This record gives sequence, structure tokens and C-alpha cells, in this order.
Amino acid sequence: MPEPRLIAVDWGTTNFRAYLANSRGIVLDEVEQPSGILAVKDGNFADVLRNAVGRWLEEHGPLTVIMSGMIGSRQGWVEAPYVRCPASIGDIAAALIKFDVEGLGAVHLVPGLDHVPPGEAPDVMRGEEAQIIGAMASNPSERTTFVLPGTHSKWVTVENGTITGFSTYMTGEVYGALKNHTILGRLMKDGQPKGEGFLKGVEAARRQGAASAGALLHQLFSVRTLGLFHLLPGEELPDYLSGLLIGAEILAAARPGQTITIFGSNELTDRYGKAANALGLVWNRGPERSVVAGHLRIAQAAGLLESAG
Amino acid sequence: MPEPRLIAVDWGTTNFRAYLANSRGIVLDEVEQPSGILAVKDGNFADVLRNAVGRWLEEHGPLTVIMSGMIGSRQGWVEAPYVRCPASIGDIAAALIKFDVEGLGAVHLVPGLDHVPPGEAPDVMRGEEAQIIGAMASNPSERTTFVLPGTHSKWVTVENGTITGFSTYMTGEVYGALKNHTILGRLMKDGQPKGEGFLKGVEAARRQGAASAGALLHQLFSVRTLGLFHLLPGEELPDYLSGLLIGAEILAAARPGQTITIFGSNELTDRYGKAANALGLVWNRGPERSVVAGHLRIAQAAGLLESAG
Repeated sequence: MPEPRLIAVDWGTTNFRAYLANSRGIVLDEVEQPSGILAVKDGNFADVLRNAVGRWLEEHGPLTVIMSGMIGSRQGWVEAPYVRCPASIGDIAAALIKFDVEGLGAVHLVPGLDHVPPGEAPDVMRGEEAQIIGAMASNPSERTTFVLPGTHSKWVTVENGTITGFSTYMTGEVYGALKNHTILGRLMKDGQPKGEGFLKGVEAARRQGAASAGALLHQLFSVRTLGLFHLLPGEELPDYLSGLLIGAEILAAARPGQTITIFGSNELTDRYGKAANALGLVWNRGPERSVVAGHLRIAQAAGLLESAG
Repeated sequence: MPEPRLIAVDWGTTNFRAYLANSRGIVLDEVEQPSGILAVKDGNFADVLRNAVGRWLEEHGPLTVIMSGMIGSRQGWVEAPYVRCPASIGDIAAALIKFDVEGLGAVHLVPGLDHVPPGEAPDVMRGEEAQIIGAMASNPSERTTFVLPGTHSKWVTVENGTITGFSTYMTGEVYGALKNHTILGRLMKDGQPKGEGFLKGVEAARRQGAASAGALLHQLFSVRTLGLFHLLPGEELPDYLSGLLIGAEILAAARPGQTITIFGSNELTDRYGKAANALGLVWNRGPERSVVAGHLRIAQAAGLLESAG
């Protein structure tokens, strides 16, 4: 097994994950901790990084260190300006931000991407681009749609190795705000749902069909009235709301019959997959830890690492 | 001026309003206090009512006391079951709930309405029906659409004196949850907006056009990116979000060229009117205090008061 060559750091708003990998992208060791950028005091990012990965460098160094995610945002350590879509691996590699960290040497920041469709508001992502580039390696189709569900779901189109565009859906965050901070949470009950709620929500989204965007503002009220009229038990209401929102997201973002590649936590991937099935899409599960493969490919494209022999 | 005959009580979730009126619906005195049903401790609704209107009864009694709003809900004083649409004044008057309150005598509760469109989730309202019935008196068209904007906006269709159906849009509550409990609030700044934000939001909703319900989940992210790219100052972002949501509501609920009657606070009515204009609707302002006229007409229909001579 080739020796360690790369430290890939996925540093987001709430979580910090670092992987020690060899030149084939095999993960040899890893660290996960809740020290996302919002948890770092007084901008002391260097200490967090040293404490997390310093021992790998001492033992195996020198190693190429690459970071992606919100660590490169205005609220992060050093701002890495967005690269505009369409963006290839080469474009991203050329825009790496390099700086020195005491005790660690040079580290590299992967820039986020922006996408500005004509006549529409800009869209942005940070961190997902590295996962996409990692996933491309195992998905050689000419044109693929990758879905990264979550707080802010991303629907990303890749054509012939280039990220051509993407759209953000605030589904996860809207779900939390509605559940915890509106009347819709009132009739919800904790407890194990039997499972009918989620697909009923997806089905309600499907029935709404081609209604306009504001239809969602009306449809949300059904979370309350179905509870009020005892048409759905309180335990099912959180999943009904989830199905309504995820169903609406998929219907807005995808075409019927389209094939999508979903990657996220197993729970969330299963949930999106279930909704995609119900809405007539074909889906497959994206690779795990694609961020490591992504960092490796970017490092190779930037000439920081030779390609694996 | 005819003598006092009616006490009309509009008792909602957060506010309590009572009006002393004569048989023509002229308001002779009024009380407004923040003792909505959520603020009443241990179900002590009788004390709140006695303290607010007892002196009118002592001075002018006996008077007909009618209440509407969330006071008739499951969380209120006595539950008044919903009357199903289509509902006429006669249907509502026949479903009044009468009960005795120590020291006040008989009081009457106006029931809320429900509407169950085939194949859709039920919809409900409480309190708005009394305002609509009051407004009908000054709007004798065969078919009218009344809009009551707010936390839960109601779009109500009236044909020949009968409320035939309605839809709730959670616009106001969704606005608050998104502004206060998601990333969208982060780039917002307090301070006086110059006014461009609201109409830009309405225009963004219009451009989205006939996209599906889930398009809203994507479009909301523009509140963040327009701030991030300095395309809209932080002071304008709250109004941009407001315009996006109100625009989406109007586009989903109305047909282009339709005439609507809006009634609510002046500020909210102006805001909806501005969006309606931008979206090609014709609108007029509904009557003030229509709840008093509504209670009067319901009392007359129930035989509790003779019609004004």
C-alpha cells in the first residue's frame, strides 16, 4: 500500500473532517470533530488544524494539505474567491489559494463555485464542488445530475468533466424553521412514525403538479389541517412536511424519468431516493467520502501530487 | 342616534378587540388589549370578558354579545364546530353557539368555516368569516374575491352572498420564520429601506412564472446571494423577501386582470396592493371594522336583533 501523501480537510459551518490518504485516495486515518467554522473562537483556525492533523505531518510529512468548504468563505480563515461555472477540474486547480501555517507548512484552499444564469440571481456553493469532482471519477457518463441533499440541497449538472451549473434548494433549513418556529410544529408529536406520512407528503407535492411557486405557501397549511381533522397522526406530521418539501424540490429540479446520483448521509439519501422513486425518477447512490477523491484529483491537476501509478 | 344594542368581540390568538355598537353598526365605544387567547391564564376567559365589556352592560344592558375568532377554537373558551363551505349568513347564524357567563348573561360564538376541495387537504378559518360577512354588505357584486393578508393570508370567494370557498397562504408566518430563524436573516440590516427591494422581490416572483411549487425553495436562496454579491443592500433584503413571498402568493391565488378586495391594516393592505398592481391585478380597499358589521348581520339573521329601521 503506497505511503500517505495527502491530508484532505472538509471544513464546514458545523463540522470538521480530516482524512489522511495515499496517492490512490485510500483513507489511512481520519478525524471528525464538531469544530466547524462557527465554533472556532477568535479566528484561531491554525490551532484547530494543528491539533487535528499535526501528528500526521510529524509522522509522515511532508504531505499535501488541501481544505474545502466554508473555511474558504468570508466568515472562514482566508477567503477563496468563487470560480464561475462552467468550471473544470483545471479551472478549480488553477484557483487554489496557498498560504503558510506555522508548524504545518503550505496549505491549499479549494475555491467555491458560483453560477449566474442569465436574468436570474447568482447561486453559490462551497465544499460540494470537491465532492462532485471526486464523484466524477467513478461516474464517467457524458452528462450527470448530482444531488447533494441537506440544509441547502445542491443540484449540480456535470457535462464531460465540467461542472456546468447548479441550483440550491433551501429544503433542509426551511423544514427546520417551519417545524420549530411556526404553528406547523404545534400538532406534531414525538415518537416513531409508521411511515405513511412521508409518502403522503410526496404525493401531495405531486398532486400540486405544475402549480406556481406560491402554491407551496398554501400547501404547507395542510400540515396543520391534516392534524386538526385527525387525517394524519401527530407522529406522522414531521415526515409529511418532509415529504411535501423534498417532493416539491425534486419536482422543481428534475424531469420525470431523469437519472440522478444522490449522495449524502445514508438516512438522507434513502429519504431522497424514496421520493425520487415515487416521482418516477431513476437514482443511484453516490460514492462515500468522495471529498477525498476530489481533493486528490484537484491536487494532481494542480501539480501538487503525481498521478497514481 | 339609536341606542347601543350590540357588543361585537373579535378575540384572536394575540389580540382582544370589543366594540359597542348601535343597530346601524355605528361604533360608540371600543376596547383593544393584548389579551388574545394565548395570554389568558387557566382558561379564565370570563374574567377577561367581564373586565373589558362589563361596564357597557351595566350602563346600557341588556345587549347582544357576539364573539368570533380563535376564542371558538379547541384552544379557546368553548369550541364552535366549523360550518362547511359553501356557507351563507343563514348557515352561520344557525350554527351560533350560545352559553351563559356569570354577570354578563348569554353570549354567542360565531363558528369558523372549513372548506374541503375534492382531493385536497381541508382548509379552515376563524374570525375572517365575520369580517367577510361585514364586507359583503358594502360590496354587492355577484362574485367577489376578498383577500385578508396576514400571518395566514386568506383568499375568500363570495358568490351571491354565500362564501363558496377559500385558501390559506402561510405567507406572514413563513416570512417571520425565514427572516428570524434561517441564514436569510444574516445579511439583513435594520434601517430604512429606500423601497427598491420589495418590487424587486415581486418581479423575481413574476419572472419565476409558472414554475412548480418547489421553485420557491430555490428562489429563497436569492435573498442570500443578492446580499452576498452586493446586488441589493442589507436594508432592502427584508422587503425583497417580503416581495418574493407576497408576489408568489398573489400569482398562485389570482388570475391576471382579476379584481380583488384587500382588507387588513393600512400598511399590509398597501403592500399587497403594490404587489397586485405590479402583477396586473385590479384591487380596492375593503371597509374598516367590517367585523362589527359582520356581527350585526349575523345577529339579525339569527333573530337576536331586529334589522335597523
